[in-house]
Amino acid sequence: MSVCFVLVNPQMGENIGFVARAMANFALQDLRIVNPRDGWPNVAANAASSGAFVEGGVQCQVFDTVQDAVSDCHLVLATTARERTQAKQVYGVREAAQNIFQRKQSGLKSAILFGAERSGLSNESISLAHGIITFPVNSQFSSLNLGQAALLVAYELFQSQDDEGELLPFVSHFGSPPAPHAMLAHFMQNLQNELVAKHYFMPADKAEIMQQNLQALIMRMDLTEADVKTLFAVVNSLRNDRG
Amino acid sequence: MSVCFVLVNPQMGENIGFVARAMANFALQDLRIVNPRDGWPNVAANAASSGAFVEGGVQCQVFDTVQDAVSDCHLVLATTARERTQAKQVYGVREAAQNIFQRKQSGLKSAILFGAERSGLSNESISLAHGIITFPVNSQFSSLNLGQAALLVAYELFQSQDDEGELLPFVSHFGSPPAPHAMLAHFMQNLQNELVAKHYFMPADKAEIMQQNLQALIMRMDLTEADVKTLFAVVNSLRNDRG
Repeated sequence: MSVCFVLVNPQMGENIGFVARAMANFALQDLRIVNPRDGWPNVAANAASSGAFVEGGVQCQVFDTVQDAVSDCHLVLATTARERTQAKQVYGVREAAQNIFQRKQSGLKSAILFGAERSGLSNESISLAHGIITFPVNSQFSSLNLGQAALLVAYELFQSQDDEGELLPFVSHFGSPPAPHAMLAHFMQNLQNELVAKHYFMPADKAEIMQQNLQALIMRMDLTEADVKTLFAVVNSLRNDRG
Repeated sequence: MSVCFVLVNPQMGENIGFVARAMANFALQDLRIVNPRDGWPNVAANAASSGAFVEGGVQCQVFDTVQDAVSDCHLVLATTARERTQAKQVYGVREAAQNIFQRKQSGLKSAILFGAERSGLSNESISLAHGIITFPVNSQFSSLNLGQAALLVAYELFQSQDDEGELLPFVSHFGSPPAPHAMLAHFMQNLQNELVAKHYFMPADKAEIMQQNLQALIMRMDLTEADVKTLFAVVNSLRNDRG
């Protein structure tokens, strides 16, 4: 299971079922739900899934936070309908699928984040992603819903396997494997603690946006495991008052 | 409007609305409905369309027969979930989109047929098509519904415009434009009349399948306008008892 779909704060169970159905149609089985409004399990989700949780083999896990849901993933991409202010790599659906497939070939796991039905993903959730997936739609009429967005991503992931011969396995440019998300999160938490101690996040009403910007900066760097170890050492060195 | 979606005997208005929404998302506007179970206009279709018939600009026409619905089209492709016995060219969704786009570049119109929710397209409807579109899905779990199938076709049609540079306009191999469907239908009707007069379609309980096979054979030939004129002359010549 090298790709997971992560639904963040989904509202209607029916839509969770549609996503599971789309996943099963294209042989995906790892569904993760963060803080679903109506709890889990959900009768409406089962009804709409057309058996995706049974015959389709879709496994569903529930998490409290996005961070927990993606901790074992090496590439996290956030789906968004609108332009976002965060500076991140932007992928079309097909291009995203090819990137994910390349990583799969190297044994690396990817996550796709989908936001709540009306509000989409929060800036905080997006800041946890390495990049953004946008959908090529009619600029005059764009009303893709959650199930439709999931269907298109699942379809392109399945298709990308057909292009297998043309795609080379993903190789980090820097001779070390990409850092799993949990390693990045651990580093970020450590960095934040240090910065809080130094009163970096001031004034208080700007603290949240400052943290998000820092998080987004780190995610954009596509850090390898070796990079994170290096940065850990740098931060530890800096905080050392005796330095 | 060089591509139309044709829904044959659709049952739930909601699904017609989902199809219209998928079309509008990808800038398609020519929707044709053959013999909808619940008539037209349809309140449920409007509700599910998210405004596709208004802001999305989707135009809907109702027809009594598939033949009427596709009479101005030069390429007719039937979507099917199962293997079919009729010998026809089979396209994946992406490949179909590229073929349609090439024809569009040459001013030729294409139609995609979608069957009723449960039963799909009848063999009779499929016999009117030049080829078949299949969806690459998980062989262990395949439950694409009408709205999902339409979304994938619409998405690939929209995507194919991005590949424009790589695709050459469609050129008939035979120096004459492809025959529009109405011309083929006229020829088929004439041929059938002649054959009925000659008691070709016997025994009576095989007549329907014999007609479908003949229709499928004609559609598979990708006839140009010049070809049809030639065949008309051949048939006329053959039926002439003084020959």
